Parts: sequence; structure tokens; C-alpha cells
Amino acid sequence: MDRAENGVGPKGVLAAVLTPMDGDLSPDHAAFAAHCERLLAAGCHGLSVFGTTGEANSLSVDERLAALEAGTNGVLVLPPFYYKNVGDEGLFRYYAEVVERVGDDRLRLYLYHIPQMTNIDLGLPLISRLIEAYPGVIAGTKDSSADRERITTLCREFPGFSVLAGTETLLLETLRNGGEGCISATVNVTSRLARRVYDAHASGHDDEAEALQKHFSQLRWSIEAYPVIPALKVLMSDLTGDEAWRNLRPPFSRLHEEQAKELLSDVPRSELL
Amino acid sequence: MDRAENGVGPKGVLAAVLTPMDGDLSPDHAAFAAHCERLLAAGCHGLSVFGTTGEANSLSVDERLAALEAGTNGVLVLPPFYYKNVGDEGLFRYYAEVVERVGDDRLRLYLYHIPQMTNIDLGLPLISRLIEAYPGVIAGTKDSSADRERITTLCREFPGFSVLAGTETLLLETLRNGGEGCISATVNVTSRLARRVYDAHASGHDDEAEALQKHFSQLRWSIEAYPVIPALKVLMSDLTGDEAWRNLRPPFSRLHEEQAKELLSDVPRSELL
Repeated sequence: MDRAENGVGPKGVLAAVLTPMDGDLSPDHAAFAAHCERLLAAGCHGLSVFGTTGEANSLSVDERLAALEAGTNGVLVLPPFYYKNVGDEGLFRYYAEVVERVGDDRLRLYLYHIPQMTNIDLGLPLISRLIEAYPGVIAGTKDSSADRERITTLCREFPGFSVLAGTETLLLETLRNGGEGCISATVNVTSRLARRVYDAHASGHDDEAEALQKHFSQLRWSIEAYPVIPALKVLMSDLTGDEAWRNLRPPFSRLHEEQAKELLSDVPRSELL
Repeated sequence: MDRAENGVGPKGVLAAVLTPMDGDLSPDHAAFAAHCERLLAAGCHGLSVFGTTGEANSLSVDERLAALEAGTNGVLVLPPFYYKNVGDEGLFRYYAEVVERVGDDRLRLYLYHIPQMTNIDLGLPLISRLIEAYPGVIAGTKDSSADRERITTLCREFPGFSVLAGTETLLLETLRNGGEGCISATVNVTSRLARRVYDAHASGHDDEAEALQKHFSQLRWSIEAYPVIPALKVLMSDLTGDEAWRNLRPPFSRLHEEQAKELLSDVPRSELL
């Protein structure tokens, strides 16, 4: 995650950055850098690169390292998600080994909760135990559960622990509860609007923030009606005029031409980036 | 997978080999080689290394390569299991890219079906399409579903496609249906008995094979009452007198001392390896 404005932890609106690929399905570094700059210019406070949306789980470690030159103020760490039913003790040991083996006080580890992909529950007792064992280092969480109640509880129970919602539909609610903001896939094409929600809230214009959030969530749902990553790549292809933006690594497939057309008519270009 | 007796594909009783670890949780190459030799001496036709049981999903690619020197007559390939609901088209494209990029006619790819870990269904239409696209190269499957009906169907529908059951409780049934055998975790400690089932069937002693299989399955169920990989490591530690055999990478945890004692009394040592 890129350094936030305040120089402390990730805060505000962060895009879960898409990874553009060339015809050979290698990450296109130039297009990637251009997209990162575009997102920051459009209002993102920070960038979360090589997450779920960035198809990181289809990239090798070397490929990820090759595209990462700048520093980072945090790392988002999935639980070990292949083996199932390992219990909290095993999950604790996993994160503990990561922290101990990195062995650097500058580490800021964010727990990545995304049960719809991992089928792993990072429960509150586990999070509490990790924070207690590694205060400051276990710095926060990206919570993609879309579970309002859970996110509210996390914000309230763990002061000093940063909570970032994994969907921008909960941006305003998360901010109101004392969370830091959101890290979201669709912010790849909606950064400008996301930033307006954040700024309206920050400047105390609650009604405006509420209205913007409503509109913003509606836009998200329009995109979510399609397979999200392929859909975002179609929108980026349309925005940049670069057909290569539609490339995806398997197991993702491109939207069919019909679907792509429908998406482009469902999501007004004037609203985007 | 190690070369089978007949010099063709993996066939018969294959152990899903455990990976012994030293105190630092690095693979212990000497103990690993000794264990492989022990398994072959005890009757295994072949070895399946760095699978689920071998904690491969907790090892880096470099760590796996470092422990692999000999050739192999097949590779077991999981579906891409992070992203969900990608559809058959995405799964087909994934395996197709693997085959095309390896680009070697000697490749023998075995589809690894283990939905309890991956939450991915490798359905029959997908398997059929892959066999048709890459005949001979898509050589078979390890099916860990424990779904008798599915395994029977696979044996019957796809002649020339090798079917290996992922549990030795279905060894005899799989052989009777024309499948090749089994690849199993518990065979790490029960190779001798597994081989007796295989040999009784091969020599036409059906009643003997049946009785042995029953006894053999019972033994498996006794072990399965515990978390299987930690339990097998306790049994190996007991068999070899080497405490280091209990080491496991997270997210696995050792059995509690009480559990370990219970296991050792539940599973008679005289039955093992």
C-alpha cells in the first residue's frame, strides 16, 4: 500500500489496483505505472497493489517484486487459505511466523479478511490475540466481508487498529464508525467520486456525503452485476482506448462482446475516472 | 510422481509423501530421502511428493525444486483455487496455458480434484474437453472427493485416462472399476497392508482382497479421527524414534500430548510400515 497523505498508515480512499497485461499475459509495467498515476491524480489517497483485484494470486512472487520499486507503508497478508479447518492456533502461528521472520519493527501488517475467496474466518479472538502479541505491527485490516456489523465492531473494539472496508459501499459508514476508509476494486474507475464522499465527510457536510455515497454505491452495484475484474478491465479499455486492457490471466475470462456492450451502456462514462 | 514398475504411468499404491522438517521448519532432505526409500521398501509402487499431505502448499517453489532431483512420470496439478466462480471456461484456459507453456510432449498432467480444499469442482464436461484438446498429455486424475459414484464414472467414461483414488478406502473398488490405484496420505504408515490389498486383487484372490481392504479401511478411519497430517507425523515420530518428525509448518499445529498418546494407543504399531 502506498504512503498516505499523513505519512502514517493507509487512510482514506485506496484503489485495489488492476494489473494491466500485455498480449503474452505479462504485467505491462508502463501501463501499470500510468494507471497508478491516473488513480492518484483522480483523488486516491493511496494504492493497494497486487491484491485480489490485481490478479496477484495468478502472478509469481518474482513478477510482483519486479513491478514494485517504491516503498510501502503496509502489507496486506491473506491467511493461509489452502488448508481448511486448521483452527485459530494454526492461523495465529502462521501470522506469528511471518512477523518473527520479517523481524523488522517497521513492518505494518494488515490482516486481509476475504472469506468469499479464502473460506477462512479471521475471528475477533484471533485478531485480538495478534494485536496483543505484536502491538503496532499488526496494524489493521482490510475487511472484504461486506458485513457491516463486523466492521463496526472492529472499529469500536480495537482502538488504534486501522479498519479499511473492502467495498466502497461501506466507505461513509466505516468513516463514521472511526475506520480509516476503504480499499476497493471499483475505485479503479470511480476514484473521483470516492474522493468526493471522503471529502464531504471530512469537512462535516454529512447530507452531501450521504447523497454522494448513495449515488456511488449505485454505480458499484451496476458494475458488480458483471464479473468484477473482467468488467473493470473492459471499462479501462474503453477509457484509455487501449484494447490490451482487456487481457486477463486465467482463470479469468473476458466478458463476451454482448456483455461488454451492455456494461458500457449500464455504466455512464461521464461518471468514471 | 515416481516412475511406476511398468515404466508407463503411475499405477498401484502411491504414498502422498510427508515432508519431514528440521527445527527451523526447513525440509530435511536426508530424512525425506530415507522416508521415500522406506516407503518403496514397504511396497509402494510409486511416490507422490509435495502434494497436500507433503505440506507443499506451505513450501516455496524453490524449496520444492531443491528436494526434487530425480525425474517424474507425471505432475499433479491443482486447479487455480483462490478465485471462485470462474466457470469452466476459465478453468479450461488455466490448464491449457499450463500445457501450452510447458510445450513438451512428455508432459503427463494429472488433474487434482480435492474440492474440500479448493472449493473448485472439476466437472466431467471440463475433464472431457481437456482430454480431447490434449490427448495423452491430460493423462489422469487424483480424485480426493471420496465420491464412489464419481470415481466409478471417471473409470468408465474415459478409457485410457488414469484414475487414482485419493483415499485408500476406495483402493479395491477403484481397481475393480478399471482405475489405476490410489494416492493416499495414510499410506505413509500403511504401505505394507496397502500392497497386500493390491497384490491379492491382482492375483485374483478376491475374498482375501476384500477382507484385507476392510481391515485396511478400518485403520485409516482410526487415523482420520485426528487431524491427519499432524497425526501421521506423530506416528512417524514414534516409528523412527525421531522427535523432529513432529515438526509442522503453520497453519498446522502439533497434536496435544494427550491426543498423541490416544492416537498411539488407537493405532497398533504392529500394523504399521
